[in-house]
Order: sequence, then structure tokens, then C-alpha cells
Amino acid sequence: MDSLSHLVEALSCLPGVGPKSAQRMVFHLLKHQRQRGMHLASCLMDAMTTIINCKTCNNYTTNEQCSICTNPNRDKSKLCIVESPTDVLAIEQTLAFDGNYYVLQGKISPIDGIGPNEIGLDKLLEYIKTSTVEEVIIALTLTTEGITTIHYLQTMLEKHPIKISQLARGIPSGSELNFLDSNTISNSFKNREILLEP
Amino acid sequence: MDSLSHLVEALSCLPGVGPKSAQRMVFHLLKHQRQRGMHLASCLMDAMTTIINCKTCNNYTTNEQCSICTNPNRDKSKLCIVESPTDVLAIEQTLAFDGNYYVLQGKISPIDGIGPNEIGLDKLLEYIKTSTVEEVIIALTLTTEGITTIHYLQTMLEKHPIKISQLARGIPSGSELNFLDSNTISNSFKNREILLEP
Repeated sequence: MDSLSHLVEALSCLPGVGPKSAQRMVFHLLKHQRQRGMHLASCLMDAMTTIINCKTCNNYTTNEQCSICTNPNRDKSKLCIVESPTDVLAIEQTLAFDGNYYVLQGKISPIDGIGPNEIGLDKLLEYIKTSTVEEVIIALTLTTEGITTIHYLQTMLEKHPIKISQLARGIPSGSELNFLDSNTISNSFKNREILLEP
Repeated sequence: MDSLSHLVEALSCLPGVGPKSAQRMVFHLLKHQRQRGMHLASCLMDAMTTIINCKTCNNYTTNEQCSICTNPNRDKSKLCIVESPTDVLAIEQTLAFDGNYYVLQGKISPIDGIGPNEIGLDKLLEYIKTSTVEEVIIALTLTTEGITTIHYLQTMLEKHPIKISQLARGIPSGSELNFLDSNTISNSFKNREILLEP
């Protein structure tokens, strides 16, 4: 049963998978889906060895540049700054944005020794200087590190003739007020939309 | 991003993994654990291609016979009948049983066209006839199909000079009575243990 327990152990490295669910997965594959299991193995090997970071925006890609950076139909005047490739995927699914992205390597966190250069802000400045970007849209999460990074970005970019914006802060769709934190609610008051003005 | 979306899709074939958690797994592996991801791929390929059913008991093994069947220290006079290799693992972890196992290929279910031979009861009879088994311990779950299979096994084996037993039915450890079904409670009354008799 050695290759079986090795597989159970290897599956446990996936987030959210403990030994029990790993075991369930292995027995499921062995009983019903050996072909799919082998397919998964080859997809996994393929992805781990071929996926690299886009040399322009740091997004995941299998080529030198990602499909967004090389797409001539994207609006090169808008640059959205996100903190991980998952965020690119989430924004792309909405179809709400047609500009380019720049993926940071995390957020500034002095306590962990992560400064502006560790997350690639120097490369970002270079990018902006050499491109036709007119508006930078900051789409970072509003944690302490996120807010620090936003402040740094603002200071860094204010010397350049570019518009800087950040995603609207307010009530998410479908949320009930009594389940939201007071920070979100007070932000939504500050940024309220005028619907009618006499 | 093709190899990325292929991997997300392939991971979704695992039980309990939807597209969202598959995506989370992929990004986690890409960001932090590429080596582990590759290790997982090779373990997976290895398990899918080398694990077969033991020719004696149907348990999973990488050899012709499993490590339990070939172990000379196991008590060959006791044979435990289970419905899947996971049950063998669960029983082995308790260290409560030192006999051999026979893994059925499921349970009798006339409605699905699954009869005694489909789950390997003919092979089991052959096994028992040619071995030194003195007691058969039935460890099947008590679903409708499980109970049908137990009845069939009983009828099949009553012509042979072997003891037949089944796992005790009663209250599981740590359970509270008010969370248990009435069938379990009534079984536990029927099979109550005498602690003191004057």
C-alpha cells in the first residue's frame, strides 16, 4: 500500500485537504476514475513546469508575455494594480475592465521585512514611465498592509502626470447591513451616490 | 493561461472539490509549492498505474497479493468481509482484528442489476472452500443493500461448517442518545450487555 499512502500524503499539501479527505479522493480515483487521475497528473506536471510570470505584468502565463499584455484590443491607457494573479482572474470574469494589469508580489509589510522593492514597485514605476498609461486603478484589499501599499503607491505616483483611482468602497451586492462591519458602513456613507438633487 | 485552466478543470474531478477550491489549490501550488505539486503529479501517476486489486481478497495492492494476505502472522481462521478497501484501512487502524479480509465489489442491489456474482460472492465461496477459515465476520454497513447482502451471505454460508458473526450494533462511542436514530437505540436495547447478574 506504499504508493497509496504516498499519494494520500502528497494530496494533503493542497489547501483545505486533510488526511481524511485526501484518502477519500484517492479511493474515489482508484475506484472510478483512473483515467482522470492520470489526466490530472499530467495537467499538474504541465502546469508546474510551464507556467511562469509575465515579464511585463507578473501575471501567470506560459509565454514570455501574458495574453492580456499582448492583446492589441486592450485599452493601454488604463492600468489596474492587483496583488495576485487570482485577482486578475476575478476581475476578468466580470468583463468590467478592458485595460491592462500589473500584479504586485504581495503587499508592503515592514514587520515581515517586505518593502516596496520586494513587491516590485520599482519595476512598476519603470513600467509606467515607459508606457502610455493615463490612469492607474488601485485594486488592493483594504487590510493594514493593503492600505500601507496604497499610500506608498499614491506618494510614488503623485510626481507623475497620471490619474490615480481606487475601487469604490461600499456595501457589497446582496449584503445585509447588520452583517457588515462598521468601517464598511461608514465608508458607504462617506462615498454615497447622489441619486436626485433638487 | 491554458494549462492553468486545464489543471483547474482536472482538479474538479476530485470529490469535494469545485471550480473555486480547485482554483485556490492551483494558485497555492504555483505560488508556494511547485516542487510539491510536481511530487503530487508523480505520486498520482504512480498510484493510478501500479495499484491493482489483490487476487485473493480484492484489497488494493501493488503486488499480485496484498500485504495482509501474504503476512504469515495473521490469523487465517478469521475472515472479515467488508465492502470496500477503505473499510480495511479503517479496521486496520484500530488494531482490533488480526485475521484476513475479503473485499466485496459493492453490495447486492437488484434495482441496479447488481447480483451476488457482480460483487464477487462466487469468488468468496471458492475462497472459503479452499481455505482454513473457521469464522466469517460480516462488517457491512446497515443500509438496505447491506442488509440484503448480509442475508444472502448467511444463506450462502449456512451449508458450510463455519461460524458467522457480524459487528455489534449499538451506540457509537461519544454519541448522545438524543442525536441517534430510533433504529440504533432499539438495537442497543436488544443487544444490551449484562454487567451484573445476581
